[in-house]
Amino acid sequence: MPAPDDRTPVLFLHGFWHGSWCWTEVLADLTGRGVRALAVDMAGHGMRAARPAALFRRPFGAEALAAEVSPVAGVDLDQAGDLLVSQVKRLGGDGPVTVVAHSMGGAVLTRAGQLAPGLIAHAVYLTAFMPASGVTSAAYTRMPENEGSLVGALRVGNAREIGALRMDVTSPDPAYREAVRATFYGDVDPATADAAAALLTPDAPVGIAAGVTTLTADGWGSIPRTYVVCTRDATIPPALQRKFIADADDAFPANPTIVRELEASHSPFLSMPGQVAGIVRDVLS
Amino acid sequence: MPAPDDRTPVLFLHGFWHGSWCWTEVLADLTGRGVRALAVDMAGHGMRAARPAALFRRPFGAEALAAEVSPVAGVDLDQAGDLLVSQVKRLGGDGPVTVVAHSMGGAVLTRAGQLAPGLIAHAVYLTAFMPASGVTSAAYTRMPENEGSLVGALRVGNAREIGALRMDVTSPDPAYREAVRATFYGDVDPATADAAAALLTPDAPVGIAAGVTTLTADGWGSIPRTYVVCTRDATIPPALQRKFIADADDAFPANPTIVRELEASHSPFLSMPGQVAGIVRDVLS
Repeated sequence: MPAPDDRTPVLFLHGFWHGSWCWTEVLADLTGRGVRALAVDMAGHGMRAARPAALFRRPFGAEALAAEVSPVAGVDLDQAGDLLVSQVKRLGGDGPVTVVAHSMGGAVLTRAGQLAPGLIAHAVYLTAFMPASGVTSAAYTRMPENEGSLVGALRVGNAREIGALRMDVTSPDPAYREAVRATFYGDVDPATADAAAALLTPDAPVGIAAGVTTLTADGWGSIPRTYVVCTRDATIPPALQRKFIADADDAFPANPTIVRELEASHSPFLSMPGQVAGIVRDVLS
Repeated sequence: MPAPDDRTPVLFLHGFWHGSWCWTEVLADLTGRGVRALAVDMAGHGMRAARPAALFRRPFGAEALAAEVSPVAGVDLDQAGDLLVSQVKRLGGDGPVTVVAHSMGGAVLTRAGQLAPGLIAHAVYLTAFMPASGVTSAAYTRMPENEGSLVGALRVGNAREIGALRMDVTSPDPAYREAVRATFYGDVDPATADAAAALLTPDAPVGIAAGVTTLTADGWGSIPRTYVVCTRDATIPPALQRKFIADADDAFPANPTIVRELEASHSPFLSMPGQVAGIVRDVLS
């Protein structure tokens, strides 16, 4: 039996539309090497998700799906951040936890880090939103660095009116299904990509992307952080990923971002889980 | 920081139609108390699932769904058992692992245990199939002790012809959706039950239920085992759960089953995750 492990435990937070299920292979690598690791569901996702009824109607009505107010419309960054703090406390007990966040999970990690910097040993942003003080994640998606992102084309309905960034996850349209693959899973084998797409939550709460966190030097700014740039990402373009890093380093130059790079799509936890786990192990060692 | 933990790691295997996602709260409890734990996907499930195209067709055709041969029709107990052995080896390294299996996961655990008894410190069957030597799980569902099981009513299509036990997981029919809840999630809060139902894999490979394992005293019969009877289960009736225990104890009287009891539906990992985790901790201590 391997010797007991005294590295900090690791908590994984997925991005919009995903759930704890997406980290399975990364967790298998880490737990198999003695690390205590856990993937959790973001507020409004996974076992905390709720789906619009119009998605399942037969016959299906595209207009009804575009118009139905989301059952997660009330979920916001306050709720998501508080939930992550509680998840971190539960995993860590009295001790610190390393947190790995993907995509919109990064905005939630930034909030949780500002709320409880002492609980987070290291913050790892895996092609994730890492918004500057007072700036919404949504604002970053309107910056020139976001040009080329494919994710907007997947959206159904008016996000402000329905309260969610909605995808038609059960669409049979081959073009739409291919767009899902191209946006999220460009380098993932097709069978795994299809299995993942079928588990997506249709509604991501707009309130998480619309929230801001005021960052301080002794709050989030004090937490060691690593940003993993994914150079083939079609959801968060590499230019936007580097913008997050530049903004953070401008604000907190005494605590610069450690930058790693993967030649990966938006979902390296599926296409190269061993390399993602390797970066996490480097952070722990 | 809590002291490093030298208890055996714990691997969780879900049942038919479910995935690693269903264990999230149980894992949160255990990892938060220092246990290294991992939930994996069964062959043909979760990130290894494939779905019939007819499920997503618009307009939907019930006859097409009932007739389409399953993309997982080739998955069998050999494949599922071998996969579980590899998952156990990966988690345990050179050391033994405690494995917790739910529902049809139990048949896979029995196979893996017979293949590699030295790798399994303790086998925990959570209202799970625990078939006797040479008997299929399917045969148990035809025994009088299975009377009252609601799961058959959810089935779509002829399992032998399509190669899968298929559920219409995206059905909008309120009666069908209520039947899913009543069958699997009788004591689970409705929002969580709906979130879980939306993540179900429609096709469970019939080959897993049709496989048999020849059990020996120095193989599966040598592994310490606990059976957690769930007294309000509408999928595997308590009488059938006790039949599994009786058959095992008849075959291997020198290694009797440790029996625990929860007043729970088929899904105590959702309705009472803390109590499930507590039983696992008792096994480890």
